Amino acid sequence: MTTTVAGTAYDRLLSLYREGTLLGSTAEILSWDQETMMPSGGVEYRSRQMAQLARLSHEQITDPRLGDALSEAEAEGHPEDSAEHAQIREIRRDHEKATKLPAELVEAFAKLSSVSQHVWAEARQKSDFAAFKPHLEQLVKLSRDKADCLGIPEGGERWDALADTYEPGMRASEVAAVFEPLRDRLSDLIKELTASSTKPSNAFNEATIDIDAQASFVKEIANAVGFDFDRGRLDRSVHPFCGGSHCNDVRLTTRFQPTEFNDALGSTMHEAGHGLYEQGLPFSMVGLPLGDAVSLGIHESQSRMWENQVGRSEAFWKWCTPLAQQAIGTPLAHLDFEDFYGGANIVRPGFIRVEADEATYNLHIMIRFQLERAIIGGDLAVADIPGEWNRHYKEYLGLDVPEDRVGCLQDVHWSMGAMGYFPTYTLGNLYCAQFFDTAREQIPGLEDGFSRGEFAPLLGWLRENIHQHGRRYSASELCERVTGKPLSAEPLLNYLEAKLRPLYGI
Amino acid sequence: MTTTVAGTAYDRLLSLYREGTLLGSTAEILSWDQETMMPSGGVEYRSRQMAQLARLSHEQITDPRLGDALSEAEAEGHPEDSAEHAQIREIRRDHEKATKLPAELVEAFAKLSSVSQHVWAEARQKSDFAAFKPHLEQLVKLSRDKADCLGIPEGGERWDALADTYEPGMRASEVAAVFEPLRDRLSDLIKELTASSTKPSNAFNEATIDIDAQASFVKEIANAVGFDFDRGRLDRSVHPFCGGSHCNDVRLTTRFQPTEFNDALGSTMHEAGHGLYEQGLPFSMVGLPLGDAVSLGIHESQSRMWENQVGRSEAFWKWCTPLAQQAIGTPLAHLDFEDFYGGANIVRPGFIRVEADEATYNLHIMIRFQLERAIIGGDLAVADIPGEWNRHYKEYLGLDVPEDRVGCLQDVHWSMGAMGYFPTYTLGNLYCAQFFDTAREQIPGLEDGFSRGEFAPLLGWLRENIHQHGRRYSASELCERVTGKPLSAEPLLNYLEAKLRPLYGI
Repeated sequence: MTTTVAGTAYDRLLSLYREGTLLGSTAEILSWDQETMMPSGGVEYRSRQMAQLARLSHEQITDPRLGDALSEAEAEGHPEDSAEHAQIREIRRDHEKATKLPAELVEAFAKLSSVSQHVWAEARQKSDFAAFKPHLEQLVKLSRDKADCLGIPEGGERWDALADTYEPGMRASEVAAVFEPLRDRLSDLIKELTASSTKPSNAFNEATIDIDAQASFVKEIANAVGFDFDRGRLDRSVHPFCGGSHCNDVRLTTRFQPTEFNDALGSTMHEAGHGLYEQGLPFSMVGLPLGDAVSLGIHESQSRMWENQVGRSEAFWKWCTPLAQQAIGTPLAHLDFEDFYGGANIVRPGFIRVEADEATYNLHIMIRFQLERAIIGGDLAVADIPGEWNRHYKEYLGLDVPEDRVGCLQDVHWSMGAMGYFPTYTLGNLYCAQFFDTAREQIPGLEDGFSRGEFAPLLGWLRENIHQHGRRYSASELCERVTGKPLSAEPLLNYLEAKLRPLYGI
Repeated sequence: MTTTVAGTAYDRLLSLYREGTLLGSTAEILSWDQETMMPSGGVEYRSRQMAQLARLSHEQITDPRLGDALSEAEAEGHPEDSAEHAQIREIRRDHEKATKLPAELVEAFAKLSSVSQHVWAEARQKSDFAAFKPHLEQLVKLSRDKADCLGIPEGGERWDALADTYEPGMRASEVAAVFEPLRDRLSDLIKELTASSTKPSNAFNEATIDIDAQASFVKEIANAVGFDFDRGRLDRSVHPFCGGSHCNDVRLTTRFQPTEFNDALGSTMHEAGHGLYEQGLPFSMVGLPLGDAVSLGIHESQSRMWENQVGRSEAFWKWCTPLAQQAIGTPLAHLDFEDFYGGANIVRPGFIRVEADEATYNLHIMIRFQLERAIIGGDLAVADIPGEWNRHYKEYLGLDVPEDRVGCLQDVHWSMGAMGYFPTYTLGNLYCAQFFDTAREQIPGLEDGFSRGEFAPLLGWLRENIHQHGRRYSASELCERVTGKPLSAEPLLNYLEAKLRPLYGI
């Protein structure tokens, strides 16, 4: 690297930082390609391409010249409320996170998690926790080492150091404080709903619909809610995701089955929500912290808002019902508005997180959070996971887990060594509900607009209040700035109760 | 870069070299993505990603540690006929080519050619050579500087130094020696054919066929000739090409119009021919010279063989006619074998190279070769290109060029600074015909097999004799090894005369 840049230390810093994120953006395209386009024969060489990019971008972010420019830029005295100050603060964060981990630990972790994912996939298939156990034990050990290298925050715990990668600043104690009231009221709500003799019709989910017709319809809807196809695409993959390399090249994927059309539509709305956030980041800041998303929790708040607060709302289905019937024809012709709106909002406790409805989903997350917190904290042995898992599913969801395949072996996250990741899903739901309440207060007739296909007011509000800032504010600062309050479980609970009770005749 | 490798200098050399080609393979995927998948908004950032990869891989190939390992590996005394010797020779070649060009020249060239392509595209649209002229003059000047840096081979000329990038070792004097007899006999043949009152039917090319039906049929044919879709794909793009990153991930594109179905099929066969070569390179040598193609001319020999010697042959159409009729149905139902075979082999002098038939194509190339040789040699001023171009088209093809848009402004190559590239197209046709003659001698019933859809014998022969060797032999060595003779125009001329005269009732 021989880049030399005139100007201030700050300018030099941005330029050096951008080299690393530019390589990272290339890796993003390769990663998208791998899931959507790459022929199966490409796997082996692709892993070499990805490893090289990871190594090179790690070299860039840990480059001592970047460290020097950082210290010099800090000494330039940019005002605390300036964009420059925020950029420097976030680059410091990324540089330190990268330099704190010894190369040997990073490599050992990468190797172990790569092997563990294979072992996990096989163990899941055979429902054989014992086969996965030794690998998970090693992953827990290395995760604890990782936490120690990253540094446990003052007054915090090891889990916090790991979770900070996904949700900067998040503490287990704070998560628990928000999750506990949520758990109690949610459990009550779910009991109420499942006990009710009135249930929404499932006819919408049972309709068999041509997959190409589904694909063309969900694309139309993504376009209607504001996803810009000149700056993005929508493809198919086994697991839906939002990838791409920057705000002007955002790539969504979704998946289809012959029935369960609302899964495809919901996935599309979810990924489009992530994509709208990405497309709303400022291109002038591309490759810099202020052009990057705040956290996984805030990202999830955007996907959930378009999937749920918009895409499962009464107003949305007033608009969407005739459109879907016109586009799909016969398979949906016998249904009415209640079938669509009700079918999109069925609550039914089940074993599998990724198939869970809006209400039960958060209980799945809480169980994982409690277990991983205990494991990392040393209060729970890996061997005891299946028993504890099953005990919690019985207690929270009233379910007897028949085998680990649909129990503690169902998720890929721990096998990748991603400890501290799960709570970001529920944090996303919480931020989402709280943001949406504020949007509703500030945009007159917001939901009425949905019933006429008017989504621009909401998107404009999100652009203005959330997207344009990139990482300027932390997740909790952003929440206070936008909503005037710290994060709370109230808005989500109020939203779920207000929507679901009437659908269940309560 | 902190790669350290134990073992011999040779091992170290391969490892360092592979770092650069691995980055290059990533750039190949991005480049494919840009032509096929990237949303239009991605252009600006993509050019930054590509520039970074180009810079990094240039740093790798010019790395002084690679230079040291090279000298040490040369001193290890690997036998002249060994694979090791060939690898070292080719890496030396690549390293020297890269180190000989000063970074300033490379950058100036990249900038100029980027601007020139835009200027050219606009000038072509307006048929305004004067607008493009100053840029082309600068490109010629920089190309001459480039040739001087690369070094003019002893007894050679400046053009040779430029052409060597595309066709290692090729000399203008040798090209001229093969091209001249070709020109004379080809001109005579074309006059004979155009004068004949018997002409093949054009009905096949006039049939209107649904584009999705075309797409699915050409994919079936690519598969039938041996293209492995587990190690490759076929997509659509404005200009057909063969991309991808290595032998197990080869990406073809083609294009479709409502009529001219054989253009789509021919393009597909052409790109599949390139793709079969790529898929035949040994994965054990991936990222090394022995896992890489010999030259553009040899590459083109493979694409042309599947496009022409196979795909425009009588035997191929005996097999393909019923398949096409079955797959496409009504639009082709009224045609018979003669319509397909004849329609695929119509000879008609025209202005546009990329639309030219097998016979006239080579005259288009010769005109370009003669002009660029004279420009680089200083014997022709850029201002005089249009006049000379038009004079040659009149002389060789009997055509009066009405405007530069369909004359000297039609091709992108010179605007990219690619001087010395054009002859590789005709060299490809020549190598192809000479290889195919040998294959026919060595494989009993080769063409009979085509009429039963048996293409594996030809593919196996190409794998064995050409593909598996990578860059082990130079193009001319390979030609002598495979065919026992130096390159000559005879096989191509004999092939064209033997096929085309009967079709024109001669």
